[in-house]
Amino acid sequence: METDSKFEKIKEKHKKSLQKAIKEKKIDTAFKPLCEFIAGTKNFFTSSCCSGRILILGLPKGDRKKEAYFHKKWHRKVKFEELWQGLKEKSIGELWFKLEPFILHIGCKTLENAQKILTIMKKAGIKRGGMIVVSDDKILIEFQGTQEMSFPVKKNEKILVEKKFMKNALKRANEKLKSNYLRLEKLEKIMKEELK
Amino acid sequence: METDSKFEKIKEKHKKSLQKAIKEKKIDTAFKPLCEFIAGTKNFFTSSCCSGRILILGLPKGDRKKEAYFHKKWHRKVKFEELWQGLKEKSIGELWFKLEPFILHIGCKTLENAQKILTIMKKAGIKRGGMIVVSDDKILIEFQGTQEMSFPVKKNEKILVEKKFMKNALKRANEKLKSNYLRLEKLEKIMKEELK
Repeated sequence: METDSKFEKIKEKHKKSLQKAIKEKKIDTAFKPLCEFIAGTKNFFTSSCCSGRILILGLPKGDRKKEAYFHKKWHRKVKFEELWQGLKEKSIGELWFKLEPFILHIGCKTLENAQKILTIMKKAGIKRGGMIVVSDDKILIEFQGTQEMSFPVKKNEKILVEKKFMKNALKRANEKLKSNYLRLEKLEKIMKEELK
Repeated sequence: METDSKFEKIKEKHKKSLQKAIKEKKIDTAFKPLCEFIAGTKNFFTSSCCSGRILILGLPKGDRKKEAYFHKKWHRKVKFEELWQGLKEKSIGELWFKLEPFILHIGCKTLENAQKILTIMKKAGIKRGGMIVVSDDKILIEFQGTQEMSFPVKKNEKILVEKKFMKNALKRANEKLKSNYLRLEKLEKIMKEELK
């Protein structure tokens, strides 16, 4: 019973955070229906999530992640003109072009519940993920897509990529982002079937 | 006792595979000491592993992974000349330049043992990984580094990258591969301290 109430408290806390994020439009639209569905189940909750994005990452001090910032960020298909405009804007140090896949954290009440999520994940064709926390009040699962791209595009105000190269790379990134979102849709469909 | 003997059998099988891989020099040198150390413990074994690599991936049919092949593959720092030579060699469809981080699977006897590995992972600064299988005879943990690069470099016999761009990208890939190997060394050191 102790475990029961602890889990319920955590679930309730995350449900409120989710409702706040939805109200403030701080949640990716592609993840909203899935997160809302999971919030409505008895044994699961979602904490952090990102549906996947194309971004220009600023690294003012080389690989030091702590100093990194979002120079530009899109959770959707990107047009070449807006990307190129972003590249031309003032920056310090290095800029990297990145396509990042979705990432989702799901909290589960029991080990059995967590196993169920891993089964659903595999069924949806998601290859990367596992239980990252196993404690007496919850089990936390993290999983991610695998659609990724990453390369340096600018250094000390100098753009390193040719337009032609960048046009093709962006085309491929947009295609991969689409595959990423289709995978999420598949996940949502299977979740709704398996957890109903 | 039943569980005990099942785990022992799996561990023994993987130990033999490891010894075979070492004999046939099929194991990455950067992972050899760590895998041998883990094979010598009572409650852990390693199954598949890769220490991280720079590669040119061939995609004859676009994103269809099943058809992908290694056009070139190096588990070490790469010189520009050998990369460029690799790019010029005959290929079909698309070629992608990739830097892939290390990946390691560790089998654990109990949930407590698995928790220990997750703690070590965090202590070594490894952010991606978790328990991917929890069964009555073993718990399997997968974890990976996060040093990654990926972009298209050739399509239908046409090289898409300028030499200058590729030189800088390879320089950054070599730096990231070095960080990846340093992370592995740190992991090995902490493993040996914590599991002795």
